[in-house]
Amino acid sequence: MSNTFGTHFKLTTYGESHGTAIGGVVDGCPAGLVFDSDLLVAEMARRHVGTEATARIEADSVDIFSGVYQGRTLGTPIAFSIRNQESDSSDYDELRDLYRPGHADYTYAMRYGIRDHRGGGRASARETATRVVGGAIAKMLLREKGITFNAEVIKQGVAEDHDSAGGIIECTIKGLPAGIGNPVFGKLNATLAAAMMSIPSAIGFEMGAGFAAAEMKGSEFRDEWHCSSLRPEARQATTETNHCGGIQGGISNGMPIVFRVAFHPVTTIDQPTQCLDPDGNLHTWQPRGRHDRCHLPRTVVVVEAMAAMTMADHII
Amino acid sequence: MSNTFGTHFKLTTYGESHGTAIGGVVDGCPAGLVFDSDLLVAEMARRHVGTEATARIEADSVDIFSGVYQGRTLGTPIAFSIRNQESDSSDYDELRDLYRPGHADYTYAMRYGIRDHRGGGRASARETATRVVGGAIAKMLLREKGITFNAEVIKQGVAEDHDSAGGIIECTIKGLPAGIGNPVFGKLNATLAAAMMSIPSAIGFEMGAGFAAAEMKGSEFRDEWHCSSLRPEARQATTETNHCGGIQGGISNGMPIVFRVAFHPVTTIDQPTQCLDPDGNLHTWQPRGRHDRCHLPRTVVVVEAMAAMTMADHII
Amino acid sequence: MSNTFGTHFKLTTYGESHGTAIGGVVDGCPAGLVFDSDLLVAEMARRHVGTEATARIEADSVDIFSGVYQGRTLGTPIAFSIRNQESDSSDYDELRDLYRPGHADYTYAMRYGIRDHRGGGRASARETATRVVGGAIAKMLLREKGITFNAEVIKQGVAEDHDSAGGIIECTIKGLPAGIGNPVFGKLNATLAAAMMSIPSAIGFEMGAGFAAAEMKGSEFRDEWHCSSLRPEARQATTETNHCGGIQGGISNGMPIVFRVAFHPVTTIDQPTQCLDPDGNLHTWQPRGRHDRCHLPRTVVVVEAMAAMTMADHII
Amino acid sequence: MSNTFGTHFKLTTYGESHGTAIGGVVDGCPAGLVFDSDLLVAEMARRHVGTEATARIEADSVDIFSGVYQGRTLGTPIAFSIRNQESDSSDYDELRDLYRPGHADYTYAMRYGIRDHRGGGRASARETATRVVGGAIAKMLLREKGITFNAEVIKQGVAEDHDSAGGIIECTIKGLPAGIGNPVFGKLNATLAAAMMSIPSAIGFEMGAGFAAAEMKGSEFRDEWHCSSLRPEARQATTETNHCGGIQGGISNGMPIVFRVAFHPVTTIDQPTQCLDPDGNLHTWQPRGRHDRCHLPRTVVVVEAMAAMTMADHII
Repeated sequence: MSNTFGTHFKLTTYGESHGTAIGGVVDGCPAGLVFDSDLLVAEMARRHVGTEATARIEADSVDIFSGVYQGRTLGTPIAFSIRNQESDSSDYDELRDLYRPGHADYTYAMRYGIRDHRGGGRASARETATRVVGGAIAKMLLREKGITFNAEVIKQGVAEDHDSAGGIIECTIKGLPAGIGNPVFGKLNATLAAAMMSIPSAIGFEMGAGFAAAEMKGSEFRDEWHCSSLRPEARQATTETNHCGGIQGGISNGMPIVFRVAFHPVTTIDQPTQCLDPDGNLHTWQPRGRHDRCHLPRTVVVVEAMAAMTMADHII
Repeated sequence: MSNTFGTHFKLTTYGESHGTAIGGVVDGCPAGLVFDSDLLVAEMARRHVGTEATARIEADSVDIFSGVYQGRTLGTPIAFSIRNQESDSSDYDELRDLYRPGHADYTYAMRYGIRDHRGGGRASARETATRVVGGAIAKMLLREKGITFNAEVIKQGVAEDHDSAGGIIECTIKGLPAGIGNPVFGKLNATLAAAMMSIPSAIGFEMGAGFAAAEMKGSEFRDEWHCSSLRPEARQATTETNHCGGIQGGISNGMPIVFRVAFHPVTTIDQPTQCLDPDGNLHTWQPRGRHDRCHLPRTVVVVEAMAAMTMADHII
Repeated sequence: MSNTFGTHFKLTTYGESHGTAIGGVVDGCPAGLVFDSDLLVAEMARRHVGTEATARIEADSVDIFSGVYQGRTLGTPIAFSIRNQESDSSDYDELRDLYRPGHADYTYAMRYGIRDHRGGGRASARETATRVVGGAIAKMLLREKGITFNAEVIKQGVAEDHDSAGGIIECTIKGLPAGIGNPVFGKLNATLAAAMMSIPSAIGFEMGAGFAAAEMKGSEFRDEWHCSSLRPEARQATTETNHCGGIQGGISNGMPIVFRVAFHPVTTIDQPTQCLDPDGNLHTWQPRGRHDRCHLPRTVVVVEAMAAMTMADHII
Repeated sequence: MSNTFGTHFKLTTYGESHGTAIGGVVDGCPAGLVFDSDLLVAEMARRHVGTEATARIEADSVDIFSGVYQGRTLGTPIAFSIRNQESDSSDYDELRDLYRPGHADYTYAMRYGIRDHRGGGRASARETATRVVGGAIAKMLLREKGITFNAEVIKQGVAEDHDSAGGIIECTIKGLPAGIGNPVFGKLNATLAAAMMSIPSAIGFEMGAGFAAAEMKGSEFRDEWHCSSLRPEARQATTETNHCGGIQGGISNGMPIVFRVAFHPVTTIDQPTQCLDPDGNLHTWQPRGRHDRCHLPRTVVVVEAMAAMTMADHII
């Protein structure tokens, strides 16, 4: 279950960061869609934006195995893989029996009893590359319907040398018609929240006015109907404000969908680190290589990808 | 899909606020569990805590139809219903063709083309009563494993007369062992977020340090291993801080699970209200009866219920 | 999972044969459908056709709790229940610790550790009443699209007094357009097979030529295109024979869907019966009351109901 | 949905017969299992048993991309692919706009509007290679629990030259403990039926006595408890006969699971063939190359694979 996203537009992913390959299968994409390879390449490149330095440069060339024939989708599963570059994983040997603080090393060991300790394995942020592929395909589908996605970093923490920073990304979805979503447990905002909170290092999510709404009065918060009311061209209503973020009762109201995701700083920092071993002893470990101080610029495209897959899943 | 919560411990709900009954089916509860009716009654009563006045007093007596025999669960579906009291729904006649601002009237009409306009229908907060039943059964199951839930209102907006207020509820889960949850798309925090954001009027969710983590440095944020390290009795590690809220890589680390949910004020307020009709004209409507100024005290048990069902779903 | 049928048109059922009630929730029925109560009553009556005698006469009056308003469906869950008549279940006291041969008593005990021993509990054929309700709603939906279901008993075993008989039911679905179904694991014939084999006492399933096809040559079996080929009015092809039963590659070809289900005789017969106790000892038990010699006439409507729900699930 | 088999032990497959590759992702296999590559190779070889001649020799070398580390499973998804050999698909050019009788050409065109016409695309029996990979992994898992699978051809039609034959395969599962399966819609026999009927050219399925049970009396059919009753070593009951095929009320009773699957002859035969074009005209087409007269010997391992995955899905 946990390696599959979506119900109708589904992405199943696989791969450890230092295994042979990562990849996935997109199932549910309609037949006949023009497959835009350029968009896919461009989206993959956005995942490297702002990279100061990584010891490992990811080429991230995507091989498509199925589901596309003569430039169009067949309606059958679209499988893809991204080879991991062969790297010297001996760097990780010393971590074989150590749990780093702030990582999933300890929790994976408790969950599975066994783990691929090299570079985070399945918990590595490298898995987000497969989300970007799924998102690119979702965007190919949705732009034909006039639905667009725009995320940007609206707050970025200041990190000193040898440290890291988090921040906040805001995403706006335009062109989504009213009436998309579901009641009760399948609310559009609930599925968006799950999609966003599944991104590595996400720690908060809010729609529209968000946490600030907790201090507003009802008379301030509620979005009044715009006096020009129904847009004549689309018979679609608009509101004067958008405090609800475009969703009411779990269903889109035709206004832009607006949400924000808070990310904590990455926890691998260039400082001596106290790691735990299975017997409960602490050991000092010094990370090697250089690490991004802030991963948010790279994460913008991941936020858009998850938003696009969420919308595709609701619309199909 | 949208009327069912969970994959292994599943709650399927039904019912319009002014129909014959609301109710649900809990599927996946193990056999042999002592069914604690007193707990169920007590939890249902908590949904009425702090009610200043509602025109409609909900008796909320729960009838159990199946799945329990001689005081124990059978492992088969537990079905229940809660009769709606017969009420004069003519109050709602004038809303038949009006969309209130800040409600799901318009979005349901766009989604289904048809709706039960009486009192919000399926979008009414009345459906949360069925969540409390599911949550009570989940609690019966989890307290045997030493897992407890405690939610409280930590911020409440100030509302003037004829207005409403929102606020923030914080929930702490204790006793959850390390190793519960899933990687990638099935992260424990992602499923918690979806559960919470599905509650009517929820507008924000955060784990541990939450949005504040966006301004922390990595060296501040990461939870260092406690120097006494593994608790000898449980061989379970602890950390000095709990900024991550008890979850790493989507899997519990044995520390308390801590999260907060922001709720916007309810949008039915005792003031003249501009409603939209299907032709795009505005009409002034005056709500009748008295309404709670703040629904947060009633919502505490709903937050706990969703948390309990989420944990039950991951643990079974 | 096992108490829910379908993915898009879903029926979740509950109830033990001697509990308070049996019932279910239909989720996924579109909004705006005229709810034909007369059809529902008529279908429920068909489940009593041919009953020679049962100690317990089932009134089977169906209460609808939700999802229908002013004679039309709302697109929200349709919940229903059927009260069990209060009966003296002391008849079953002697079976509390006995496993009858040919029943699910032993397997339920192994599966759950606990069971409601009265009258088969959840394994009783009484649960098929809830399938008939779901099937009736599916039929309301599908007849608007011109899709009809006709099942009949084509073979019935001869049973002597104090014994029982099985038989074969054949079902034909007409009006299903070409192109319905899915490839690979979601084949229309595969989901039909699962639907039919889930009916109590079903023991075989075949499409079209069925087991006889195992002895045909390819040149005999394959359905040649009808020389008049595409029907001009519908642009739909027809074939000279229908050995495949209307499905190719898991997808309907526009010909009638034809399948057969074999049922074994019921295993409660009016003869002294050797039952097993949990310690491995045999005890002689004499069933009371009179029992149907053959349940097939009652099962015809159940076969149609499962077929209708399967088609509704594929078409929505 | 239709490209994924299983709920807990899941196989998602992809690939057209003449695309780049076919393959799949196994999700849900527990961590720590020894991955037996030799078993995988041996099972893949069984899919070529009895091949008289195929124009295309499939090497079927399986590449594993993830989920296995140092010879053991990680509990994460196991992804694999099987390259399609580059072949001259111009043979198929003349079929671009023709629908062969007895194939899925027409139904895929109706379903998707677009198709990969080369060699059957996704509907080709080539996809069964991915089932064998999934089945091999399921067998690795289940043999540790003493559960074994044995299928064999028990009836094979006689085919003349330039024609084809079908037949019947019987499969026996030993070592499955009592108590596996589910009630109502999730019956073990129902899921087995769906698994088997999803195999290309399957046209009938029966458990135990099967269709013959339709002519038995209840007193003949019901499996009496063996007089030595509970096997002392396992506290497991046995029966004198096994007419039910090892499943009662959808749950295993500890006796061997026995079922049969009927397969129709393949419909590509070495004879002039009348194909339909989209305008309703017939064209004579002569298949090239040599074709197997009977595919049953190759299908034995596919039946076992589907049985193994079905059991793994119920047991996990």
